[in-house]
Amino acid sequence: MKTASDKNIPYKIYLKENEIPTEWYNVRADMKEKPAPLLNPQTLEPMTAEELSHVFCEELVKQELDNDTAYIKIPEEIVDFYKMYRPSPLVRAYCLEEKLQTPAKIYYKFEGNNTSGSHKLNSAIAQAYYAKKQGLKGVTTETGAGQWGTALSMACSYLGLDCKVYMVKVSYEQKPFRREVMRTFGASVTPSPSMETEIGKKILSEHPGTTGSLGCAISEAVEKAVSSEGYRYVLGSVLNQVLLHQSVIGLETKRALDKYDVKADIVIGCAGGGSNLGGLISPFMGEKLRGEADYRIIAVEPASCPSLTRGRYAYDYCDTGMVCPLAKMYTLGCDYIPAPNHAGGLRYHGMSSILSKLYDDKLMEAVSVTQTEVFKAAEEFARVEGILPAPESAHAIKVAMDEALRCKESGEEKNIVFGLTGTGYFDMVAYEKFHDGLMENYIPTDDELEIAWKKLPKVDR
Amino acid sequence: MKTASDKNIPYKIYLKENEIPTEWYNVRADMKEKPAPLLNPQTLEPMTAEELSHVFCEELVKQELDNDTAYIKIPEEIVDFYKMYRPSPLVRAYCLEEKLQTPAKIYYKFEGNNTSGSHKLNSAIAQAYYAKKQGLKGVTTETGAGQWGTALSMACSYLGLDCKVYMVKVSYEQKPFRREVMRTFGASVTPSPSMETEIGKKILSEHPGTTGSLGCAISEAVEKAVSSEGYRYVLGSVLNQVLLHQSVIGLETKRALDKYDVKADIVIGCAGGGSNLGGLISPFMGEKLRGEADYRIIAVEPASCPSLTRGRYAYDYCDTGMVCPLAKMYTLGCDYIPAPNHAGGLRYHGMSSILSKLYDDKLMEAVSVTQTEVFKAAEEFARVEGILPAPESAHAIKVAMDEALRCKESGEEKNIVFGLTGTGYFDMVAYEKFHDGLMENYIPTDDELEIAWKKLPKVDR
Repeated sequence: MKTASDKNIPYKIYLKENEIPTEWYNVRADMKEKPAPLLNPQTLEPMTAEELSHVFCEELVKQELDNDTAYIKIPEEIVDFYKMYRPSPLVRAYCLEEKLQTPAKIYYKFEGNNTSGSHKLNSAIAQAYYAKKQGLKGVTTETGAGQWGTALSMACSYLGLDCKVYMVKVSYEQKPFRREVMRTFGASVTPSPSMETEIGKKILSEHPGTTGSLGCAISEAVEKAVSSEGYRYVLGSVLNQVLLHQSVIGLETKRALDKYDVKADIVIGCAGGGSNLGGLISPFMGEKLRGEADYRIIAVEPASCPSLTRGRYAYDYCDTGMVCPLAKMYTLGCDYIPAPNHAGGLRYHGMSSILSKLYDDKLMEAVSVTQTEVFKAAEEFARVEGILPAPESAHAIKVAMDEALRCKESGEEKNIVFGLTGTGYFDMVAYEKFHDGLMENYIPTDDELEIAWKKLPKVDR
Repeated sequence: MKTASDKNIPYKIYLKENEIPTEWYNVRADMKEKPAPLLNPQTLEPMTAEELSHVFCEELVKQELDNDTAYIKIPEEIVDFYKMYRPSPLVRAYCLEEKLQTPAKIYYKFEGNNTSGSHKLNSAIAQAYYAKKQGLKGVTTETGAGQWGTALSMACSYLGLDCKVYMVKVSYEQKPFRREVMRTFGASVTPSPSMETEIGKKILSEHPGTTGSLGCAISEAVEKAVSSEGYRYVLGSVLNQVLLHQSVIGLETKRALDKYDVKADIVIGCAGGGSNLGGLISPFMGEKLRGEADYRIIAVEPASCPSLTRGRYAYDYCDTGMVCPLAKMYTLGCDYIPAPNHAGGLRYHGMSSILSKLYDDKLMEAVSVTQTEVFKAAEEFARVEGILPAPESAHAIKVAMDEALRCKESGEEKNIVFGLTGTGYFDMVAYEKFHDGLMENYIPTDDELEIAWKKLPKVDR
């Protein structure tokens, strides 16, 4: 075992509270070619600010559409909230390095040490804040596994804002603990589909026994927002505004590395809708776009839902219900139903437009991994690093370990940085399946993917 | 809302890694009258080191019996492990202060940001380390709610030590997630009573349908340890050695306060077996014992299990099975079965000998609170401070809030410090009952307590 005196970098690099970023970084400003705009699903023309403001808060619409401003001031009240759980530690994975016997240096930015259990809180507080500032009564949203719903409940409770969460019915029933956390923070949680909305009633009459889907829950949350006085809809990933807010992850990471003169060689993150990855990589990508430095940047996705690695770059609906705007992105088709794997946060058919564009421009790589290898890595990591990772986060762990083992073969002392987005306390059913040898892998066939793409909207942009 | 610029003390005071204590503080060294010794249950004579070493590791026996050494060096390997999750933050509860509109300044030492979810890890790593150093193969223990079992699993996994946990059967069945966390860290978890031990077989033959008890699980774990080559038994609370290890909590707290020239007026902690409270208060109590400073120190216990506030100070068995040594302590009688309240970690019939002695010497106070008022405080706290507390920890929150409200009445700007021992992610069943209005309070009658005391052993010391 190495002893402390061998180590000139602490186990956990904590920035000071006054080093929390006071500006978000908008990577779009440094992209020569911008991500494609959202399209109105009726007219197939770019969504205007006015159109978007029926659904989203005004300030968030501005952020959504702003491709030019590189740094956007974080309101002081949000910075104050960040101080309750940020800066998050950048951890040097000494124990993992020793376990792998690798010359690589491994770092991870740990976003799990807050009650929502993930990085989602970074954007939840921002979205809730602008809703409050606009004088709204409340916000609506959907949640699947529950991390986003929990984060939003916390933010709304702090600001005294009403929070209405449509939770996919199967999760509502199977994850009662997540539901109770949201209730603890005062949110109203409705199993979706419900009788509270027209779309919910319609779905229930057509499919009386349905256990719901994320697509349906989105549709209900959007309907509720646009039909209720003083409410707007908020979303925890995919959108440009969300990646903007999540840039605090990357900015803190970069600053912590800079403090110790560490230059990252590889930056790795899991990718579902792209909020964590987009936030983590943004300042690194910025330097890369400006030609100031080079980094290998790797997105990791589940083999069962391989948007980047096997998807098509095309305009598609953001939701299964096809009520939301169209986004140009790597997509498996909005009708694609991923196998019920245990990384709920990565089961999204598409990908952030920003990340899709960067990937298409070959500025980042993507790999997919199966869930059994992910859980194997998760357990190995937990045993030496003492953190129980969320299945989503463990996708990044798996690839970071693979890269570290490559360094072992080559003898290279690379600096590997990955995002550990959250904790797995509410995912023990999945760990149990893994321990009992009951976890299966699912990889869609080419034919299955072809079928889902048949419903891609015809957009010639 | 106050803004950051009003605040000269950060939201979270983080010590540097090199400020983690390198010595534990042994409060017994400063006690003029020492806590009463453990007695051999057969001879009723003080347990010798030799007798204790059949059950506990040698170095831990030394620590258990050492009433004189004030500072005991923490082995470097343990300090290294501490660096994975320590120093823990001392949080200034700005948002709670504002919510309560109190002139008091509230601080809490948050021990929940590690995967075990509580302070238990501080002693688990120490006990596992000495077992490893002694060349043992493994350790046995019992767990009720599961926090101690989880902490020990993590420590053993890190050191490559076998870990055998007897988990009270009702918890094993009702808390499968806790069990899976332990399995993730490689522990073997057996529902107790089991057919693996003589005492387990005996109990099962006499009570075939029993769902177990902590007393029975202790007996099984002790039997397994003494009957297996290369194993010892370890315990997560009550013992002197555990309070010693937990002194890191208090030492860090004191150091963080000193950095900002804050003198605590009141120090508050929840008390089950006493490990957290004993650790938190130790350096403050040390100053008090040496006449250097004065502090109000308050133990908080559940009204359903009021060892200090309504118990007797007498020799009693530490376990229901009466196989363990006798300790002189405030006790409700080792036969006392507390009502099934939701703070499993506080459902212990007795109390650390050290704390019992200090309480008997009127060096600290004790109050009891009902669980509905505890959950009300927990929820109020969560909504403003963004941390979901364990029910155990929320006992301290409740009393800290009460004291802060007293300051509001009196106008006093007292500094209130409390221990937030852990998180409530695995306690959502209890929160659900609270939300649904199904939580009841139970306060034992004087007659019920009288009955339990009838079995107190006759010891004239």
